[in-house]
Amino acid sequence: MRHAVILAGGSGTRLWPASRRDRPKQLLPIANGDEPMIAGVVSIAREVADRVIVVTAETLVEATLAAVPNVEVITEPVGRNTAAAIGLAGALIAGRDDHATLIVLPADQHVRDRAAMTAALAACLSAVERDDVIALVGIPPVRPETGFGYLKVETWGRRHVPMPVERFVEKPDLDTARAYLACGGYLWNAGIFCLTARRLLAELDEHLPLTASGVRQIAHDNGLIVDPRSIYEKLPSISFDNGVMEKTDRVVVVPAAAGWNDVGSWAAIREVRGAGEDGNTTTGPTIVLDGSGNVVLSDDDTLIAVVGLSDVVVVKSGDAVLVMQRNEAQRVREVVEALKSRGLARYL
Amino acid sequence: MRHAVILAGGSGTRLWPASRRDRPKQLLPIANGDEPMIAGVVSIAREVADRVIVVTAETLVEATLAAVPNVEVITEPVGRNTAAAIGLAGALIAGRDDHATLIVLPADQHVRDRAAMTAALAACLSAVERDDVIALVGIPPVRPETGFGYLKVETWGRRHVPMPVERFVEKPDLDTARAYLACGGYLWNAGIFCLTARRLLAELDEHLPLTASGVRQIAHDNGLIVDPRSIYEKLPSISFDNGVMEKTDRVVVVPAAAGWNDVGSWAAIREVRGAGEDGNTTTGPTIVLDGSGNVVLSDDDTLIAVVGLSDVVVVKSGDAVLVMQRNEAQRVREVVEALKSRGLARYL
Repeated sequence: MRHAVILAGGSGTRLWPASRRDRPKQLLPIANGDEPMIAGVVSIAREVADRVIVVTAETLVEATLAAVPNVEVITEPVGRNTAAAIGLAGALIAGRDDHATLIVLPADQHVRDRAAMTAALAACLSAVERDDVIALVGIPPVRPETGFGYLKVETWGRRHVPMPVERFVEKPDLDTARAYLACGGYLWNAGIFCLTARRLLAELDEHLPLTASGVRQIAHDNGLIVDPRSIYEKLPSISFDNGVMEKTDRVVVVPAAAGWNDVGSWAAIREVRGAGEDGNTTTGPTIVLDGSGNVVLSDDDTLIAVVGLSDVVVVKSGDAVLVMQRNEAQRVREVVEALKSRGLARYL
Repeated sequence: MRHAVILAGGSGTRLWPASRRDRPKQLLPIANGDEPMIAGVVSIAREVADRVIVVTAETLVEATLAAVPNVEVITEPVGRNTAAAIGLAGALIAGRDDHATLIVLPADQHVRDRAAMTAALAACLSAVERDDVIALVGIPPVRPETGFGYLKVETWGRRHVPMPVERFVEKPDLDTARAYLACGGYLWNAGIFCLTARRLLAELDEHLPLTASGVRQIAHDNGLIVDPRSIYEKLPSISFDNGVMEKTDRVVVVPAAAGWNDVGSWAAIREVRGAGEDGNTTTGPTIVLDGSGNVVLSDDDTLIAVVGLSDVVVVKSGDAVLVMQRNEAQRVREVVEALKSRGLARYL
């Protein structure tokens, strides 16, 4: 059977003040009207998988099930990055389905063209079930993005043909990202991939043996003999990319120009939502006079009026308001640090 | 007796979103901590007057008495500008005190140096009671302000000596305001002045006879025979400056460098409150990173975070947030117009 494994343990702060400790990005209605981001990912998963499993933190189970009621949930006892989370899901799924295929999807991404994504995933699944590879979806870059990892390939075409990945590339600086964009031999690594549960456990055995034995023990014991938390919290905290993908030679990639966006900052909201006639991206009661390129978002009846300013972000969410230049949207992290250091962590 | 007449009928919108229809500027705690502006004016009035009377609109009586509990209130049936309001107060006061002297003070101003203001008012009162003049307090200008009227004098000194006013000057353009500031022969007209109630009524008889007869009729009838509203609403809507001051030859002025500020825009908040070590003027929970010259005000527990922006105004008040350049603070009026024209008048 095909099992979608949706990774929803994150608690990102880059969309503060909308994203908070108890309401991470994947639960926000950022992209499609009132739909939480994870609901869009679940829709894609249902197209290609027989079952949908969400891996999330204990503290987020209730909110996650409120957002996507008809999924199974695997709880991470603590956060230990993606290798452990994927390994845990793989071991649990393998325990009940000896021939499971996994489709791994981050929960906090937006895909504009869902048909293109499901077609790419279908191509990935065919390759996985035919050749026992690890098949990634790669996104043809549309801007010199410095916030993502890249996949180096020979060259990418438009058809859903798996091709070998020459190497994984860490987040580049701007000049390098521009060169990647120009040369045409690089794809964004969206963290979306398929592989069999057996292949997953075999790769973990080879490259992350502590993770492999830990998640197997949790899955086999099923909570009866050992305390899963005590095992899980000892697992190495490493990403699946770093721990497995970059070390194995079984990785292929299927390009998919699917309008993928990780909505990693308030600036990205503009790409996902577009702008109105006056050039501004707004939600809720807003007035923008003599300004364009602004992202002005109110999460309730609070009116936001912006006068004579362009290319700024003004976000009112809950008990906080953020005002910044749009092209400096990554500086939200500085706000988060300042809130911690100034005794204002209650706003996180 | 000396009667302070505090004009508190205004419903200015220049401090929106703090100032609203039901909470005009004089009721806001803008300048001194939690003290409404009118309370500061009442404090000055008590220093120089035997009684304090506040003239305000029917809709504002309750809120006004909450802000300044121990005053008498005269209610304007409708708003008819300052000539009618002052005339009504003068007629009512003259009806019970044949030898009343009036000290007229706008309610929505901030005076940093109250001792300097009371000394100037004492000099005005002496002149009024000795020479039956109309004695204004004039403020030595400290910037080329285009938002005030000016008083042309020979030249002004620092001592509290009344001097003749050569003429009243309407709000100038910036070049003219700069020339006024440079030449030293101009004072700001703060709308603060003293005169006897008899002189007031005599001047109204001469220059605004309809106003004179109307307010006399209301004062004499005391509501028994006529409907005061039906009389008052027929009075000409004209300022006391335009209707009387500019036409009589009895005006003198006492200069007072009293740190006077009409707090006519959010930019002025900076002058009144000063700035912190980081160069920002803030109230409530705020974080400003990498920016100075900002005015960042939150009226409750809502956190405001401003990153990488300087010289902007961010005001959260009630159910609205305003974001604008500080040097364009007068554009709040455009917001108010837009709220009316876009069906958002509930935010006014």
